[in-house]
This record gives sequence, C-alpha cells and structure tokens, in this order.
Amino acid sequence: MTCTAQPDRKFPATMTWQGNVTGFLRLIDQTLLPVEYLEIDLKSVEQVFEAIRSLRVRGAPAIGCAAAYGVVIGLQQSVALSRAEFDVKLRQVTDYLASSRPTAVNLFWALDRIRTVARTEASLSPAAMLQRLLDEARAIEVEDREMCTAIGQHGAELLQDKTGVLTHCNAGGLATAGDGTALAVIFAAAAAGKQLQVFADETRPLLQGARLTAWELQQRGVPVTLICDSMAGWVMREGKVQAVIVGADRITANGDTANKIGTYSVALLAKAHGIPFYVAAPTSTFDLEMSSGQQIPIEQRAAHEITHGFGKQTAPAGINVYNPAFDVTPAEYIAAIITEKGLIMPVNEANVRRVVLE
Amino acid sequence: MTCTAQPDRKFPATMTWQGNVTGFLRLIDQTLLPVEYLEIDLKSVEQVFEAIRSLRVRGAPAIGCAAAYGVVIGLQQSVALSRAEFDVKLRQVTDYLASSRPTAVNLFWALDRIRTVARTEASLSPAAMLQRLLDEARAIEVEDREMCTAIGQHGAELLQDKTGVLTHCNAGGLATAGDGTALAVIFAAAAAGKQLQVFADETRPLLQGARLTAWELQQRGVPVTLICDSMAGWVMREGKVQAVIVGADRITANGDTANKIGTYSVALLAKAHGIPFYVAAPTSTFDLEMSSGQQIPIEQRAAHEITHGFGKQTAPAGINVYNPAFDVTPAEYIAAIITEKGLIMPVNEANVRRVVLE
Repeated sequence: MTCTAQPDRKFPATMTWQGNVTGFLRLIDQTLLPVEYLEIDLKSVEQVFEAIRSLRVRGAPAIGCAAAYGVVIGLQQSVALSRAEFDVKLRQVTDYLASSRPTAVNLFWALDRIRTVARTEASLSPAAMLQRLLDEARAIEVEDREMCTAIGQHGAELLQDKTGVLTHCNAGGLATAGDGTALAVIFAAAAAGKQLQVFADETRPLLQGARLTAWELQQRGVPVTLICDSMAGWVMREGKVQAVIVGADRITANGDTANKIGTYSVALLAKAHGIPFYVAAPTSTFDLEMSSGQQIPIEQRAAHEITHGFGKQTAPAGINVYNPAFDVTPAEYIAAIITEKGLIMPVNEANVRRVVLE
Repeated sequence: MTCTAQPDRKFPATMTWQGNVTGFLRLIDQTLLPVEYLEIDLKSVEQVFEAIRSLRVRGAPAIGCAAAYGVVIGLQQSVALSRAEFDVKLRQVTDYLASSRPTAVNLFWALDRIRTVARTEASLSPAAMLQRLLDEARAIEVEDREMCTAIGQHGAELLQDKTGVLTHCNAGGLATAGDGTALAVIFAAAAAGKQLQVFADETRPLLQGARLTAWELQQRGVPVTLICDSMAGWVMREGKVQAVIVGADRITANGDTANKIGTYSVALLAKAHGIPFYVAAPTSTFDLEMSSGQQIPIEQRAAHEITHGFGKQTAPAGINVYNPAFDVTPAEYIAAIITEKGLIMPVNEANVRRVVLE
C-alpha cells in the first residue's frame, strides 16, 4: 500500500478505481478517521482482503464495490493463462474475498454477480474477460452512486430551507460508493441552496456519528453540530430541529425499520415534539418476507464496546451490560421512507409494496 | 496521604471521620473509580483542599461535609493559641477551603455554618471550640445521612417488587455522606426485600452512570445492568422498565426540574411508555424564587468533554459541539418528587410549597 495526501478535490470519494484493467483501487482508510485522513492504494488482492477485514472500508454497498474491484486486481496477472485456468483462478479469488467479512450479505451479492458474468461470457479470452469484469465492477459502483443520488433527490424536497436536521449514526457516503442514504438527502438539499444546520448524534457505543457523520458533513461544508445521544430530546425542545433523517439496516413489509440502537428513542422524541421522522434507504433494504419488526432478530454485541469504548475502562469490572446493536422503530413513527424509487408516504404495507415492487 | 485497602465492611462509606478531635478524614478517592478502589486519609487542611479541588470527593452534600471536617483538621494545631488567635486561624482555614471549588454552593453553606457556631460560642476555649466544631461537622454529616434515609423511606413505597428501575447519572451515596437520593430509594426498596433490576444509563459525556452508579449498585449487591443513554427507550419498549428515578440539581416552584443532560429525554420516553418518572431530591434543592424551569440558566460545558471524552480524540478537529450540562424536565412529566419531608404528588406549585415549606 502506498499513501497519498488529502486530494485536491472538493469531496473525498470513499473509493476510486485508478487506471484501466492494469489499475488499482484507491480508498479512504476509515479506521483512521476522524483523526487522520489517509487514502491507501490497493494493488494486490491480499491488500483488498485486509482492507475489508480491518474495516478500512465498511458499509454494505461500499464493501460490495471494493470486493468487485478486488477480483479484477486478483486476476491482473492471469491474462496469459488458458480460459479454464483463468476460471479456476477467478473462483479462488472470489472465495478468498468472500471470507474477508463472513456475514456481509452485500459482499456475497457482489461476488456472485461477478461470477455470473464470468459464467455467461464463457467464450471471452482471459484478457477480454478481465475487461468485462472491470466493466461489471464499475457498473456496481455506478449503480450504487445512482441509488444514492436518486434517494437524495427524492428526499431533498422534504427538507425546508433554514431548518435544523438531526441524524443518528452514519448513513453517509463512507458506507457507499456515492453520497450515502440519509446524508445524500442532506447533501442534495444543501446543493439545492437550502441552509441546513445538522445535529449529529455521536452514536454510542461505536461513535459512528462523531467519527464519520460529523467528518463527512464537515468535509462537504454543511454546518454540523455534534451532540451526545442524550441531548437529542433537549435540542428538539429548544426548537433547534425541524426534521430527523436516518438510514436503515432492514425494513419489513409494514414499514417497521431496524436501524442503529438509539434510532427508536430519537423517533419517539421527534413524535413528542411534532417533528417529522424520515428513513432513507434503498429498496434492497426491504425484507418483504417479514410482516413486521417483531420478526427482526436483534444482534447483541460485546460488553467491552460499552465498558472500554474509548480505549479506557469506564465501568466497573464484571458489570452486567446490555448492548443491542439495533432497535426497531414502528412504522407509525415514520413520516416517510425515502427510496431510490420514490417516497413511501404514509408508511404502510400497501405503499411499501407499491414502491418496492414497482 | 496514606492509602488503605478495600475495607472489610459491607458498604463503602463516601467518608468517615476517624478518631476524636485529633482524628482525620478518610474518604473514597472517586477519581480512581471504577477501575480502582482506594481510601485516602486526609490529615492536613491542604490535603482536604486538594481532595475537593481534584474531585476526589464530589457531589454538593459530600463536599459540604468534607469541608466541615477540613476546618477541624486545619485547627488541630491551634488549641494552644489564644481564642482571638484561634478565631483568626479559623477565618484563614475557612477562606482557604471556600476557594477549593468556587461555585459549590453547599461548600459555602457548610463553612458558614461552622463560622456561625464559632461566633455564637465566643466564650469557649480553643480546645473546647475545636470539640464543638467537630460536633458541628458530625451534625452536618448526620443530617445528610438522615436526609438520605428519609428520602429512601418515602420513595421505597413507590417501587414495586420484581420490577425494573432505570436511572440516569449518579444520584447516589458517593455524592452525599449517606445513601444518596435516587439511589437511596433503590437501596431502601432493596433492603425491604424487593427484587429490583436497575438499568443505569452510562450518562455521556462524563459517564457518571457507568463510573459511579454502576459501581455503587454493584457494591451493594443490587442487580444492575449498564446501558448506553441511547438504549433507554428500547429497554422501555422491551418491557424491562417499570419505573424511572433520578436526582435533581435545581427544582423551581412549579416542580420543573433541572438535572443532568439527558434526563428530559428519559422523562419523555417514560411518558411514551406509560412508565412513572420520579425525582428524588432534598428540599434544599428547591428554588422557590423561580416560578418555572424557563428561568433556570443552562451551563454550557467544554467541547472536549464530547470530542476527547476519555483521553482519545473521537470527533474531527474543529467540529462544532453543543454541550449543555443540564436540561429541564417539565413538572407535567414527573409523577412524584420524593423529598426527606415526604412525597410531592401530583407535582404542582401548591403541593411543592406545602411540602417544602412545612
């Protein structure tokens, strides 16, 4: 890996492919944010593997893109092989990358898409195949960017000029190849000339709001104020917030939404203050086989995220800890769900199916 | 200062006077909690000053007690003086201790009480006066313990057996000479045989819940589960909480209550789930000259408490931060205020005045 200084462009990109089939993947090392900005150049499949495993790149869509490019990198030395040998190598490379984050659904989805291309283009030479795989990786990236852009455009109309917007966790560009989901809406509204003041919950225990959301908004020049999660209700009470917008991890057929722990509290606090609460997510987030949020399993995470969250012990040894990764916000608290296909508003099963399955 | 190991008694005391007029003050060094338990022996007025200034002892009532004992320590070498010389020395010692925490109202109150005793007992010899001052310091401590005990007894009836109780920040014994305020209620209910499961909000930014409340409950054998502040709403949703109880920093004539930031959110979340929200505080917390919480000034604290909470940078350099120390919970969200004189329930100005001024 070689390192480069902060680029001379306005908005840092989560990742960019540099060059043609002989090129490499450049991405922001997210493990160093927000203290240090560093772009790293990945020129071997082992480096891509390590970047995914070590969370240098994170967020389901971003991982999928990085893995697709990783396959191209892993096959760059294989163009002199026979096509049969090339296909064996492709299988090795995709299996290897799939093992970098064994629970990342989007990673498998992207690698399956690459394999499907290879299967359906069985007559191409290895060199032509490599070009075809690069085209597919670029398509995955472009589709992701387009999804973000569409969400931003559909959602921007919901945000008024000169208002305060509160967000929780990171549903930003760093989790995608584009502008993100919730933050895409904020970026699109700001680009349309609306003056927004964003309040970013720091989002304990892992502080994605403080580390990533605050950084992204700062980079893009959108006014942002960092608060502790416990302050969300009070800034609403003080009249500083006119809209809340968050991302989603999974949405059921009735619109119930699983998202980072704390989202449910924010939704209730918004309702108590008469503030609309919006969810921004691609239609791929919907799980229509689940009828309601009660069916969503809630992952429990390690106690040390709370007791040793800042590299320092902050709670008594042996203390009992409850650390759910997500909570579920009932559809009744959600004013609209913003997808790349348009708004689901009001949020109910009929509208969910109409938009998602269109 | 000499150090002692964890004592062989069931419940650690915030502070104890050891011996008679020639004795010393032993207290828990709260700056080391929860990682290390250490009692320190304060045998000079300079050590008492340093312990207050460095927050080794904290919480308004506890500071007042420590300062009163500090005066005794500061005068132990002055019994051979004339009474006039003794009085000069007493003024020096009290002025010195008053400068240890210039904004701690309870500190001034305790030192004024000591000075008043000296003025009204002008005929006593220095040796007799020293004994009288030790008696007064002990009275301050005893009254504080009795206040805690009375709050505990009045409040315990509000907690049912086999229920979950959520608390925010630290309103515990460590802030007083006794059992605390909100925690006194929990301790009294537990002592009466009620099985409680306490959920302690970690209480960002300064983590008094994780560092102190969780530790106190663990020490006393009351089942406690530590959560992040953002999880409070979700544990309520899951049916784990049947009552919320917190302390208070200031209460106005109509019952509006200023307390640690985050309390307001917890009160709203409790209301949304039909869970009673209680405040436990001595009548000295009431400021009847303020008609409502809108008159309470909200202290804004330093950004680094949020951006560098634990010796590590967790937010981008230069980020804007909003860090109010307190918020105000309107009386309408408070089911009862528990004082040493009894319950204020329902919370309105007539009931506040009846109980506080009785």
